[in-house]
Amino acid sequence: MQELQLSDVYSLLEPGPVVLLTTADQGKLNLMTLSWHMMVEFEPPLLACVVSSDDYSFAALRASRECVIALPASALATKVVQAGNVSGRNIDKFALVGLTPLPALRVAAPLIAECFANLECKVVDSRLVNKYNLFVMEVVQAWIDPTQQNPKTLHHQGYGRFIVDGDIIELSSKMR
Amino acid sequence: MQELQLSDVYSLLEPGPVVLLTTADQGKLNLMTLSWHMMVEFEPPLLACVVSSDDYSFAALRASRECVIALPASALATKVVQAGNVSGRNIDKFALVGLTPLPALRVAAPLIAECFANLECKVVDSRLVNKYNLFVMEVVQAWIDPTQQNPKTLHHQGYGRFIVDGDIIELSSKMR
Repeated sequence: MQELQLSDVYSLLEPGPVVLLTTADQGKLNLMTLSWHMMVEFEPPLLACVVSSDDYSFAALRASRECVIALPASALATKVVQAGNVSGRNIDKFALVGLTPLPALRVAAPLIAECFANLECKVVDSRLVNKYNLFVMEVVQAWIDPTQQNPKTLHHQGYGRFIVDGDIIELSSKMR
Repeated sequence: MQELQLSDVYSLLEPGPVVLLTTADQGKLNLMTLSWHMMVEFEPPLLACVVSSDDYSFAALRASRECVIALPASALATKVVQAGNVSGRNIDKFALVGLTPLPALRVAAPLIAECFANLECKVVDSRLVNKYNLFVMEVVQAWIDPTQQNPKTLHHQGYGRFIVDGDIIELSSKMR
């Protein structure tokens, strides 16, 4: 994994890919699939996400105030679905799904070795957690895997139907 | 435009497309380009979005507490960029960009005729507006254009570089 400039983080999340969210709850690692996230600020990079209070990860995220957002390329689609369909409450979901946790630098939650980018996050605002399960987080450290060139991401439409990234259009724009 | 069930709204926004946001400020219509949005609840459909306080639309959205989120297909890419690069402060941006406002049913902000879906929204929580420009909104009425079949959407990576929807993967999943 190579360090990614924090000012470039938005370009990974703004397109709206399916991501994996990892947590560490008193040493127990877990992961879940997540599509409800958005950027909130460019730099320092802030993002928001909604993690259902029904999810086992919710309690770990709320208590530890840390997570990793990992970006899987489309080749990992079956693992993404598996991670979204099983609770980590009573199992080691990393082992079940076949993904590899790696130690992060600034949070206890693990990176995912197979993902092309990993974002270490700390919760900075939990005012909307009770009502909407909505967390605001700062990305404090970011990594990319330089061996995964031009990864195509997944976009979830519901019930396991994913759009894969297609063509690129480049237009002259000052929109950051 | 045909009415869309509110329970289906999430399937439009969860994939993370670029959208247009329209407002009406004491009769003056405006629109802007937006990628920083996410779903917050399935039903009634809630979403969150971040609208920069530098944008002219910000004041209209905060004051009126209403907007329309309109989804453009990829053929509208040049208009999407134009809408994102010009302020509506001193011009009629609909006329400049060449998009057609239509009256909405439940909000003063207009629908956009050329978009394949239009979501009428009311702000329901503005606790995070002052700090993050983050609005939580409820979709109170939703429309689709049945003549636009399988529209491909745009996903912004920054500076006018867009990913267009590509292939579809369908996997068995209970993830809604």
